[in-house]
Formats: sequence, C-alpha cells, structure tokens
Amino acid sequence: MQYRDTDSVRLSDDGSAVVIIDQTLLPSQTEYLSLTELDELCEAIYRLRVRGAPAIGIFAGYALYVRGLRISEEDGDKTTFYSRLNKEAEKLIASRPTAVNLSWAVKRVLSVARGLPPREAVSAMHAEATTIHEEDIATCMKISEYGLTLIKDGDTMLTHCNAGALATSRYGTGLGALLLGAERGMDLHAYVDETRPLLQGARLTAYELSNAGVDVTLICDNMSGLVMKQGKIDACFVGCDRVAANGDTANKIGTSSVAVLAKHYGIPFYVFCPLSTVDTECESGDSIVIEERPPEEITGLYFSKRTAPQNIRCYNPAFDVTDHELITAFVTEKGIIRPPFDMRKVFG
Amino acid sequence: MQYRDTDSVRLSDDGSAVVIIDQTLLPSQTEYLSLTELDELCEAIYRLRVRGAPAIGIFAGYALYVRGLRISEEDGDKTTFYSRLNKEAEKLIASRPTAVNLSWAVKRVLSVARGLPPREAVSAMHAEATTIHEEDIATCMKISEYGLTLIKDGDTMLTHCNAGALATSRYGTGLGALLLGAERGMDLHAYVDETRPLLQGARLTAYELSNAGVDVTLICDNMSGLVMKQGKIDACFVGCDRVAANGDTANKIGTSSVAVLAKHYGIPFYVFCPLSTVDTECESGDSIVIEERPPEEITGLYFSKRTAPQNIRCYNPAFDVTDHELITAFVTEKGIIRPPFDMRKVFG
Repeated sequence: MQYRDTDSVRLSDDGSAVVIIDQTLLPSQTEYLSLTELDELCEAIYRLRVRGAPAIGIFAGYALYVRGLRISEEDGDKTTFYSRLNKEAEKLIASRPTAVNLSWAVKRVLSVARGLPPREAVSAMHAEATTIHEEDIATCMKISEYGLTLIKDGDTMLTHCNAGALATSRYGTGLGALLLGAERGMDLHAYVDETRPLLQGARLTAYELSNAGVDVTLICDNMSGLVMKQGKIDACFVGCDRVAANGDTANKIGTSSVAVLAKHYGIPFYVFCPLSTVDTECESGDSIVIEERPPEEITGLYFSKRTAPQNIRCYNPAFDVTDHELITAFVTEKGIIRPPFDMRKVFG
Repeated sequence: MQYRDTDSVRLSDDGSAVVIIDQTLLPSQTEYLSLTELDELCEAIYRLRVRGAPAIGIFAGYALYVRGLRISEEDGDKTTFYSRLNKEAEKLIASRPTAVNLSWAVKRVLSVARGLPPREAVSAMHAEATTIHEEDIATCMKISEYGLTLIKDGDTMLTHCNAGALATSRYGTGLGALLLGAERGMDLHAYVDETRPLLQGARLTAYELSNAGVDVTLICDNMSGLVMKQGKIDACFVGCDRVAANGDTANKIGTSSVAVLAKHYGIPFYVFCPLSTVDTECESGDSIVIEERPPEEITGLYFSKRTAPQNIRCYNPAFDVTDHELITAFVTEKGIIRPPFDMRKVFG
C-alpha cells in the first residue's frame, strides 16, 4: 500500500458503499471491505477495522451518506427518511465514545441534510462527506509541513500508536512529518512503541514508516523510558483523539506515560492535532469519556494460547488523557501552538 | 501449585538432577523438568524456564553441584575434575549477564570445592548449594515480614514482572508481603503489569497472586500511568536483578518507567532486595551490563500470526536501570533501607 495514492477510507466507485482497508488484518493481509449495512458500519468502528480519529471522521461522514442513500431508495417519504436517518446517526455515534471526530462528522453531514427532500438531502450529504475527506487531506498536508519544521536530518522520533496514513488520509498527522521528510530524502529514524493490546504500533506504524523509507526500530511500550534515558530520542510525536479547550489531550492508552517520561528526560513532546479533533465544549480532560474495552483484547487477541490465568479480571482502557502541562506544542493546520494553550482562541 | 510447600527449584530425590517448573509454559501447563546436562542447564536459564534473580542463584548453585557429581563419576582424576568444573562454571555464568545472583552462587559453590579431592568437593558443594537455598527461604520470609509493615488492609499495590515464589523460594521478594498478607487474611489488591515481551506479569504474577487470594487486576504495561493518575495505587512493589553500591537498580525492562511515573504521581516506589542481589563491586548503574535478547521475543513469541512487518528491526533489552533517586526504599532481610543509599554499609 502506498500512502501517497491510496486512501484507507473511500467511497466505492458507484457511491453506494464505504470501502476500507481492514486494519485488524494488517500487516500480514491487505483486505478491502465494502460496507453498506448499518450494523457492519458500526462494527467496523467498534472492532477498529477503521481507526484513527480523522479516519473515523471521514468514514462516519461517508457512512451516514451511504445510509441516507439506502434509506431514500427504500422509502421516499420525507418523515420516514429523517426519522430513520437520525436514529442511524445516533447508532453510528455510539460505536465508540472517545474520538470527537466521529460525532463531529456525523453531525456535520446530518446538518446539511436537514429539511431538504430526501433525494436532495442525499446529494448534499455526499458533497459534505466528500468535503470532510478533502479537507482532511489538505489538513494532513499542512500539519506534516509544519511538523517538518520541528525536525532536522538525522533526527530520531519516538511514536506511540498510529497516526499515519491509515489513521487519517495520505500523510497522516503524527507520522506525517516523517513520511513527508522521508519522501524528500531526509535521513529519519523512529522508535515505534508496539502499543498493546491492539499492537497498532507494531502492525501499522512500523509498516507505514518502514515502507516509506524511515529507519524503524520496534520496541515494547515499556522500553520507551530506556531509549529516552539512553539519549536516543530527539522528540516524541503522537496523534490525538480528543483535545479539550485547555489542551488536555485524549489519545491511545500509554500516551500520557510517554509524556511523563519525556518531561523527566527533557525531551520535547508534540501532539499532532487537526482542529476537527478539538472539542471546545470540553473544558478539560476531566470531562472526556474514556472508552473501556473487553478483557479478551489483553488476554486473548493475537495470542496462540492462553497467557493469563482463566477468568482473571482485566482493566482495558483504550485511551488516557495527557495533561496539557506535559505537552510542548500542538502541531495543527493553522500552525504550531505553544503554551499557554487556549484551543478556543485557535478557532477564532 | 502452592507457593507454601512447593519449590520452583529443587534437587531430585536422588540428588543427581535439578528439578524446575518450566516457567515458560505457565499458567496453561505445569510441567516439571529434570536437568543434568550442562547444555540443558544453561538453556533453562537463557530461555527463562527458570527465572528471577534469587531462583537463578539457587538453580545455579544446584546446577554446579550436579555437574560436579557427574564429572567426578566420569573421571576420578583431580586435575581433570577441576579443569572441567571451572569451564562449566564459566559457561553457567555466561548464560545471562544481568542478574548478579547467577555468578554469585556459582562462585560461592565453586569456592567450597577448591582444593578438596573430587568426592569431598562434591559433598561440600552439595552442602553449600543447599545452604544457598535455605538462606533464600529465610531471606524471603524476612523481606516479606518487613514488606508487610509498609502496607495496611485494603491497600492496592502495582507490580511489574514477577518477584514471587517462582522467582525465588516460597513467598518471594516483591510479592512476598502480598502473599503473606493474604495468607493472614488481609484484604489486598494488586494491579499487575503484563510485562512484555515475555508476559511474566500476566503469566506468573497474576497466577501466583490470584491463587493466593489477592484481588488481581491485569493491565498492559502502558496502563500503569493511568491507574496511578486515577489514584488507584498506594505503592509500587518490584524485585531486582542487580543493585549497585549507590542504589541504582537493574530490574525487568519497564521498571524504571514505573518508577518515573510513581515519582510524577507521588506514589512510593519500593524495591524488594535480598542482599545477594547487591553487587558492591558495581559503583553505579552505569556499569551494569544490560542483556539484549532476540527480536523474535517481541514479534513472534506467543503470537498466533505475524503482527509486525517481516524483517523489522527490534530493540529488545531485558532490563533497565532505575536511578536510586527514584527509589523510596529498599526492603531487605536486614530491614528497610531509606536514602541516602550506601549499600556497602548495609553489608557491614
């Protein structure tokens, strides 16, 4: 897969389905799924077949349009159309609670439909979903260019989870500067946290960065402190799933620990953040809902045999919140934002 | 398995073999191995069939005795006996570099043999190896009692890797206070880091603690920062593999990150340390050799299919060094040692 010319999320050629790369099967299998039913669209989000806050946003926009198209074909009645569309929009939003892009994209696509006759509504939703996708491509490009100003030839970055092309569009956010820099011939190195329990670092980031020509070293999550202590890391680059007005940042579980370690070892910690991920209604991280996922992801998934005692209790939060005080800067499509953080101002 | 009456390492009834529980197969299989050949003894250490600094020490003492017995039976000549014994002792020591107990026990058992005729040497080695084992039982009991003074009913401890009965004898070091407290009817809770890549936390600690009646919650290594932030943790309890004179402590990879996080969140961080693990010849952590292990432990072991790109480079250090400044206290058989640390004094 080339991140330059393939989208991890797109509409099918006839516009009736959302097509994704099934990210749960990477890197050993590259399988595309064509989704039209509400249940399978929600399942793709919940099972992380599509993941990464911006990619979930793009997916959700297309998904609502695809559902609108189907509903309008099944029943031309306007009242039925909006009743069903609103219910399905709610179900899509409920698939995962933490990434704000999901509800943001669904509400945005829903808002252009409201009031129009079904056929026209569907047409407007198609346009809006496409716009969200195109904006994300432009946003990622800008974020990657700004990110590139933070690094120089020979640098080594530490990353956690995956904020590359698969999680967004084209270059990505957290990995964008590395992918773009490598494309321009820079000598760049990365230590990649494997990111338990779902191994997005090992499966997706290592795959994307090494394909792009970045010099990659895979480590377990508990090794990031040691490589920082050894002086191997110039900066930490991560994405985000929801950023509060004060800069507190929800991202993949483990991100806040990387930030604490980076502070301890005096290493800059950058959050790559499209403004669609900022939730200005959220005052601080305290009000961000952290998704808890099933214990089997820790004890069973990917393992060839049982590695933990039967029936052991697990705590499996999918995200944590990094205090804004631990963040050196946000890299957004409007430039690099340094403390004191006031994310509402950036929107102004 | 009951930690109260079964040893993870012992001599066979006829004294000709070292018997261990194969720790790589736990918790799904409990298989005992009876080892006599040098290659299989070294392999058991290298493959972590026997692991944990004190258990490696006990094992190495018995192993050298078993080899001495065999050599004396094959050739009664004194010069040949000592030539072979010394070579085999070196090979045993070379099996893993970081835990000081390995070379400490081998040298200690070798020292009682020196000069004696082979048969008497073997007898002296048997006595010394048995003494090492008995001392460890007494040491673990004392450490567990001292550890128990640090906790109260209802407390929740975070642990990393495994420093229980399997890693030592009977009650263990880092887990000893919990096992002993549970036995005495205390209501104790533990968050257990799974400890990638070899999952000693998930496989061994979760198994030992839950069997003993401690209320266990298994988490991934990257979740320890979040549970600390949430105020769920009263103290961190870890073992150690080599402690330098200034208190810098080598232990399982990830331990130093737990210590940095504990400091950030104001949580006490205790190292449970039999004095056999202190290397007074080591001035500071800078001179502790950190073992690097094969990449397959990260990318292949335990997984049912490939989860990382083919041929990806991995960095797989088995240990890291926690700066003494991050350690609240050492719990030893001579009591609880608080800063400023001078481990040479404790030996006085």
